Amino acid sequence: MVKLFAYGIRDDEKNALTTWRNQHPEVELAYTDELVMPSTAALANGASAAVVYQQLPYTRETLAALAQNGVKSISLRNVGTDNIDFDAAREFGLQVSNVPVYSPNAIAEHSIIQMSRLLRQTKAMDAKVAKHDLRWAPTIGREVRMQTVGVIGTGHIGRVAIKILQGFGANVIAFDPYPNPELAQSGIYVDRLEELYAQADVISLYVPGVPANYHLIDAAAIAQMKPGVVLVNVSRGNLMDLDAIIAGLNSGQIGDFAMDVYEDEVGLFNEDWSDKPFPDPKIAALIKQENVLVTPHTAFYTTKAVYEMVTQSLDAALMFATGQTPAIAVEY
Amino acid sequence: MVKLFAYGIRDDEKNALTTWRNQHPEVELAYTDELVMPSTAALANGASAAVVYQQLPYTRETLAALAQNGVKSISLRNVGTDNIDFDAAREFGLQVSNVPVYSPNAIAEHSIIQMSRLLRQTKAMDAKVAKHDLRWAPTIGREVRMQTVGVIGTGHIGRVAIKILQGFGANVIAFDPYPNPELAQSGIYVDRLEELYAQADVISLYVPGVPANYHLIDAAAIAQMKPGVVLVNVSRGNLMDLDAIIAGLNSGQIGDFAMDVYEDEVGLFNEDWSDKPFPDPKIAALIKQENVLVTPHTAFYTTKAVYEMVTQSLDAALMFATGQTPAIAVEY
Repeated sequence: MVKLFAYGIRDDEKNALTTWRNQHPEVELAYTDELVMPSTAALANGASAAVVYQQLPYTRETLAALAQNGVKSISLRNVGTDNIDFDAAREFGLQVSNVPVYSPNAIAEHSIIQMSRLLRQTKAMDAKVAKHDLRWAPTIGREVRMQTVGVIGTGHIGRVAIKILQGFGANVIAFDPYPNPELAQSGIYVDRLEELYAQADVISLYVPGVPANYHLIDAAAIAQMKPGVVLVNVSRGNLMDLDAIIAGLNSGQIGDFAMDVYEDEVGLFNEDWSDKPFPDPKIAALIKQENVLVTPHTAFYTTKAVYEMVTQSLDAALMFATGQTPAIAVEY
Repeated sequence: MVKLFAYGIRDDEKNALTTWRNQHPEVELAYTDELVMPSTAALANGASAAVVYQQLPYTRETLAALAQNGVKSISLRNVGTDNIDFDAAREFGLQVSNVPVYSPNAIAEHSIIQMSRLLRQTKAMDAKVAKHDLRWAPTIGREVRMQTVGVIGTGHIGRVAIKILQGFGANVIAFDPYPNPELAQSGIYVDRLEELYAQADVISLYVPGVPANYHLIDAAAIAQMKPGVVLVNVSRGNLMDLDAIIAGLNSGQIGDFAMDVYEDEVGLFNEDWSDKPFPDPKIAALIKQENVLVTPHTAFYTTKAVYEMVTQSLDAALMFATGQTPAIAVEY
């Protein structure tokens, strides 16, 4: 019987895991909520494939301990592989897979929901309702359909966002250095970012955090945008110079801002600071502003995305364990 | 020169009013923020057409005072005409117009924004972020595209909502006793409400508050829905038996609920209760629930809708004043 072992299983993953296990009676699947490290490697003993998900590094020691326990592959339930010591993985003959695409819709939907909330002033209205001030004025909304929305990046996620925006009836324009041929036929692209900045009432980013895009949205870019522009970033924190964003909010050049990502988010997001001093005064100030929505990198976090992350990684682990190579194997 | 007079002009209406005035140099347009009543009727003296918007009744005394001051028509900036004494209006020869359609999108967008917020658990996540708890779990979202959404009523507003939902990629089913022929071709309709209740993960209403629809959503209807159903009502308060809704929320039969309208909203909504005792304990309790979103009849309240209400009513007033009959004249 094939044996798999899964580390770091959260409560919200158990449904998908149980469903997968019921569909695979030929597999013995055990799991723990503990993360993988030298002290927990023995839990996987007897399993040839491990399924993992953690921000903690997969160090030489961890990988060695897994290999000693008979593990021959690790299947990540997430995208990022930069915390793996690949030299060690090579040395111990460990195969690796990740889940590069789990749900573009999870992220695209979040971006449009937050965008429409900013346009509608829901944070201000919610605060009024909470204190029993039920007056409408001056908390008036703007309609999504009346906006020219500039979409930067038209990969998987950007294209889903465009479909949603077009469903609302918004006027969508887009920029991508590598235009999508189908989309290009609809005449949606502008040739230069400057044109998008000049025309868009709302700007949302769907580009990778590669060095070429570092601080794409800086003071110079913001100065080219329409006064009162609405900005949304659910992609990568390093795409935006947050100090320039804050200056733009203070001057009114930026009217509203939604952020799900932050350049210095590691160690800050996905932690509970409610009972201890919050270490980042910039983010604390943004959280309080009525025209700013902060979420702690939760755009991806949907039941569908989690289902895909669990299911795809288990499928890959099973393939590794039975001598096959999954399509999502990482070549290194 | 044609003279018009507008009553009850709010700050958020002044932009649209000024724009219209600049486009009509042949018209003398004066206005006040005061409502129309016997004591303010003289303000309209010299104007043959009045533009109005208020929940206060247009009584026999008010209409008589307007007529005495030379007013020959009243153009409402809103839909509802039930606060007009039409017998008196007939007696004084007053013509009446309203604005039956200003922005179906304002209301449709609000319904989908609130629906998607419920699915995403934004109220719970916002509360966590506000107190610096930046952990994701257990506040996981559901994707709009994964839902079967039941749309009840496919008039102007329902049809806009369907387009938005289809942009998200949701599976939309609909019920209307008078199906729209175009929509019917797409196979979206179910034949009976019971089918919609049985299939829908999310149910949203877009029907008028006529007697036939009184408490359409009652305990019997709720019992036929899927456990954990998400309910949205931005149409009319009397469509839902709120006690049955509350019982459904308490039992878990209803998972989430968004309301923009309430059977007893007159005198409660659009008032500031923040510095005095809140008179409705049911609504106070709902406002506090993390799976409930309450807005005080603001779905219509967008810049575009206000622009249309001001502009269409002024256009109608000008037509009355120049001996024409606008298409939005009310026949009584």
